[in-house]
Amino acid sequence: MKCKKCGAQAIIHLKQHNIALCAKHYEEFFLSRVKKAIHMFKMFDKSSKILVAVSGGKDSLVLWDVLYRLEYQTEGLYIDLGIGSYSETSKEKAKSFAKSRNLTLHIEDVRKYLHGLSTPEAAWKMRRKTCSVCGLVKRYIMNKFSHEGDYKVIATGHNLDDEAATLLGNLLHWQTGYLGKQYPVLPKTHEKLTPKVKPLILVTEKEVATFAIMKGIEYIFEECPSARGASSIVYKRLLNDLELSQPGAKQRFLMDYYKNKGIFDNAEEDSVKLNECSRCGYPTTQEVCSFCKLTERLEQKLNEKRT
Amino acid sequence: MKCKKCGAQAIIHLKQHNIALCAKHYEEFFLSRVKKAIHMFKMFDKSSKILVAVSGGKDSLVLWDVLYRLEYQTEGLYIDLGIGSYSETSKEKAKSFAKSRNLTLHIEDVRKYLHGLSTPEAAWKMRRKTCSVCGLVKRYIMNKFSHEGDYKVIATGHNLDDEAATLLGNLLHWQTGYLGKQYPVLPKTHEKLTPKVKPLILVTEKEVATFAIMKGIEYIFEECPSARGASSIVYKRLLNDLELSQPGAKQRFLMDYYKNKGIFDNAEEDSVKLNECSRCGYPTTQEVCSFCKLTERLEQKLNEKRT
Ligand SMILES: [Zn+2]
Ligand SMILES: [Zn+2]
Ligand SMILES: [Zn+2]
Ligand SMILES: [Zn+2]
Repeated sequence: MKCKKCGAQAIIHLKQHNIALCAKHYEEFFLSRVKKAIHMFKMFDKSSKILVAVSGGKDSLVLWDVLYRLEYQTEGLYIDLGIGSYSETSKEKAKSFAKSRNLTLHIEDVRKYLHGLSTPEAAWKMRRKTCSVCGLVKRYIMNKFSHEGDYKVIATGHNLDDEAATLLGNLLHWQTGYLGKQYPVLPKTHEKLTPKVKPLILVTEKEVATFAIMKGIEYIFEECPSARGASSIVYKRLLNDLELSQPGAKQRFLMDYYKNKGIFDNAEEDSVKLNECSRCGYPTTQEVCSFCKLTERLEQKLNEKRT
Repeated sequence: MKCKKCGAQAIIHLKQHNIALCAKHYEEFFLSRVKKAIHMFKMFDKSSKILVAVSGGKDSLVLWDVLYRLEYQTEGLYIDLGIGSYSETSKEKAKSFAKSRNLTLHIEDVRKYLHGLSTPEAAWKMRRKTCSVCGLVKRYIMNKFSHEGDYKVIATGHNLDDEAATLLGNLLHWQTGYLGKQYPVLPKTHEKLTPKVKPLILVTEKEVATFAIMKGIEYIFEECPSARGASSIVYKRLLNDLELSQPGAKQRFLMDYYKNKGIFDNAEEDSVKLNECSRCGYPTTQEVCSFCKLTERLEQKLNEKRT
């Protein structure tokens, strides 16, 4: 196939846009899609100090690479969860990516927050699933780090497939509490909460992977060994099947949801009041935040063992 | 596999209910599912005169058979659309079904309503798709016949797969005008409109087909040759894939929608006023109803040809 713009050998065929593109024009296309998302949802501008949530996977590294190419002010934050060789490898990928571009990468080790334990160790001690502890800990550290560093937004690597799959899952199970909240920009609901943005919302997983390969971005291939993922893989497969018979359907599904999401606004009481945690001062709907509860119980358990 | 109730050879394995059943106990199960739907959604009772919309396909004949077995008062209405051998065969299946059970089957020929033309002929003359003319004509004749015959409800053979696929299609395309209206009982919004009910809402297509085969119900296998169907087949396949990895998900998806459908209530202005058509007197939101508009334009076209 030939590039629609210049006639050179195409490297990718974008069925939903009905075009084939060469490497040069694919890069142009890809950057323009990210730019479009940033502007369409008013995510940030050139004056914003952006914290990129870096996992070492393709999505977060491609995101950071694109923001760097578009000359936004970015720094990365890698959270070392201490999940064996998975964490070691992904941290190395993140570090060498940042070094090669002379970008600042911050590394926070969960052990600093979890009384010296890694996420799997803490989960084990608490008899909880690693994923649930991991999610809580990542969100907390990301936000605290961002607030203390005075970043304007936290940018995450969620792509079109991720977001459409989450939406489909929430619809198939009528998770009315989540429906209506999913959006590429989560606003600042509290002075100590940094808004989160998803600049890859208009590009698919396949497009991100193609960009990563084309640019020689080295990322960690494996998924986190404790990831649930199973159900989101089902939804992604369903959406890819739909896309095969109705090219463009996946993106329309997500974009039309954004237009219509007001429907879900009063689905459930969402005027929850945010207090400041009596321990750490970060926002929570409870008296003590989930993170402080976790670390306190963890400390108790560790002390029980010692006595 | 053995029947869970009696240990005899099972004829079907119902993964979503995690049971296998023999012929006798499958019949019991199937009838109880239909009864459950009738009661749960207060569709009708033993005193109701029910008009069954009979197409000659498996769903409508199984529906009629079950209502007959449950001793409801039913009569059938077959609408002869004049679609060549498809209509001939399906009419014969409907007639012999009714005859064998000594049930009353009414037959209305669209030619009586369309100036002597069949549905495909009328569609051709009007430069419209057969399916769109067909849907309009069937709805109109069904309702008019029911109103004149003073039936309490019109029962149609839509099963769980049909309804879940329609819902998924409406969600994937955010058809907010349709979302919120889909329900197993459509209420009486006008004195001349008969409520419509869907008693097969709790049984799957596979369960209906198994019942038809088990009971030796002869139905027409082919789909209507002018049916669009293509997209609904995609949605059914997606839902069956989902069902494979999450047994029961299809039914939960539909039932949880019923519980949550209030969400969509004010999505679009749906307080449309129903007038009576200035030509035929049946309810419409316009001055002249779509059916009368169709037949009037059809008459004009036929007269043009003659002059
Ligand atoms: Zn090119
Ligand atoms: Zn706290
Ligand atoms: Zn049995
Ligand atoms: Zn009329």
